[in-house]
Amino acid sequence: MKAMIITGFGGPEVFQQREIEKPTPEATEVLVRVYATSINPVDYKIRQSGEWAGVKPPAVIGYDVSGVVEAIGAGVKDFKVGDEVYYTPDIPGRIGSYAEYHVVDEAIVARKPKNISHVEAASIPLAGGTAWDALITRAHLRVGETVLIHGGTGGVGSLAVQIAKAAGAYVFTTCSGKNVDFARQLGADRVIDYNTENFVDVVASETAGEGVDVVFDNVGGDVIANSIAVTKKYGRMVSIVNIEGNTWPAHLKNIDFHYLFLERHRYKLDFLRTLIEREQIKPVIDSVMSLEEVASAHQRLENGGVRGKIVLKIHE
Amino acid sequence: MKAMIITGFGGPEVFQQREIEKPTPEATEVLVRVYATSINPVDYKIRQSGEWAGVKPPAVIGYDVSGVVEAIGAGVKDFKVGDEVYYTPDIPGRIGSYAEYHVVDEAIVARKPKNISHVEAASIPLAGGTAWDALITRAHLRVGETVLIHGGTGGVGSLAVQIAKAAGAYVFTTCSGKNVDFARQLGADRVIDYNTENFVDVVASETAGEGVDVVFDNVGGDVIANSIAVTKKYGRMVSIVNIEGNTWPAHLKNIDFHYLFLERHRYKLDFLRTLIEREQIKPVIDSVMSLEEVASAHQRLENGGVRGKIVLKIHE
Repeated sequence: MKAMIITGFGGPEVFQQREIEKPTPEATEVLVRVYATSINPVDYKIRQSGEWAGVKPPAVIGYDVSGVVEAIGAGVKDFKVGDEVYYTPDIPGRIGSYAEYHVVDEAIVARKPKNISHVEAASIPLAGGTAWDALITRAHLRVGETVLIHGGTGGVGSLAVQIAKAAGAYVFTTCSGKNVDFARQLGADRVIDYNTENFVDVVASETAGEGVDVVFDNVGGDVIANSIAVTKKYGRMVSIVNIEGNTWPAHLKNIDFHYLFLERHRYKLDFLRTLIEREQIKPVIDSVMSLEEVASAHQRLENGGVRGKIVLKIHE
Repeated sequence: MKAMIITGFGGPEVFQQREIEKPTPEATEVLVRVYATSINPVDYKIRQSGEWAGVKPPAVIGYDVSGVVEAIGAGVKDFKVGDEVYYTPDIPGRIGSYAEYHVVDEAIVARKPKNISHVEAASIPLAGGTAWDALITRAHLRVGETVLIHGGTGGVGSLAVQIAKAAGAYVFTTCSGKNVDFARQLGADRVIDYNTENFVDVVASETAGEGVDVVFDNVGGDVIANSIAVTKKYGRMVSIVNIEGNTWPAHLKNIDFHYLFLERHRYKLDFLRTLIEREQIKPVIDSVMSLEEVASAHQRLENGGVRGKIVLKIHE
């Protein structure tokens, strides 16, 4: 089968197309014909230097799949050949998703939402699972609360804004000027252009100095440290990125800080499927490319400014 | 009445003895004759540079009281003249506790444990409330869990070790060599001398690589960052001190981080009284000094190595 492998750690040039053996499913695994996969920031972080993730080149990376079950192991209970599925492969896992076929333990596989295409479904598992875990599993965001989502138009952010709205929260989000209208379309109540407005001033003034219940950071740097001033006492902050700066003020407000890295479980994908089928959230596709274009896709994501997800279409 | 005031921010030499007016209680306040107060690290941090805490010299600082109600405001419901009470004054509050009398809102005052002296009771409110909040309110430490307490023989740590044992947890604690036996007497299951043992190696090896459920840091610096390696996935870390170093590994383990600064509430003191009266925890008194010796008491605490609390005895 065709796969795009990384030959070592480095820039996008480490990708090479290879013919590799089609994997066979072990007892509790399913073999999935990959119709589409998508690109996440963790992909290029691993491509750059993936020792921390346990990846050893040459390797197939890639952590989103929408596809169809083509074969099942002897112990598989929940799926049969022909089922449409979506999921995010484990990191490092046996193999990544930049390939025509993928094998995976059925425990982390879910049924694909019926009302969307494979291209759309491939945009959801890793980013959506992360947004779900951040706001719901970890921060316990509730109806009536207020949330500040940093980076609300990227892969994770665009789903986080929609999930927060679906949960009944008031949503502040930051983005660059050209994405302000787009962020509003996603449902954000107050969009802050970080090039022309200071989010601390905006949130302080528009919450009458009270601040928000929850902060979710997809941006990094000093964003979390700067957000403490506009987080309520006993508020919750969630980060999926590195943080810098002085966090001492968080002590004075008794803030809970949740460090997040997605763990794979089917139930999260089942929740997301429900939200998608009820049209409470929608996939956000920046662009569709081919498997062979994965190096360009990485470059595009690293350059920044992507709205939602870049998807690689592998089979029609 | 006699009080020790800080004349400005700086070293212990900023203390001066003064005669100031005995305060009168407002509607919901009680006037307390202070039998004893105690010294906490926050005291010398405020004495050094207390702008962050809202303190404006000249000021009476001090944040622990054990004493007797001498007068009550018209709206006071829960106390009468003659009641023995203990509590930790708010920061900055109307006045601190380095004085012969103190006024305080009854909402944060509790009845003193019956089976201990005023000197012993004065050692409990701030340090005990902090240890209680860290392990119970925030980290939800449960029977059967394992906890690592950094600095287990200091003011907060010596109570934290006892509370963790009382809660049914297995307790690792770090301290300097001369305090190892003392930490064992407090109930710690495995005492780590940080001068001769590496706590990461000890905890990893003695938990079969699993790590602990909860880490509580009273030390600061890179202690939290270094403890991530021996914290379980979805573990909880609580800090009352500044943290430094790389916290990215906490993402990979989905760790919850609780920043803590004590909020004053009566219910915490009621819990602590119950534990003391049932002899599940005991006050730990390093030394007893007089109010006039407060500068020396600060110096002693700043020098380090104090076991439990330094108490100032004000009235017999």
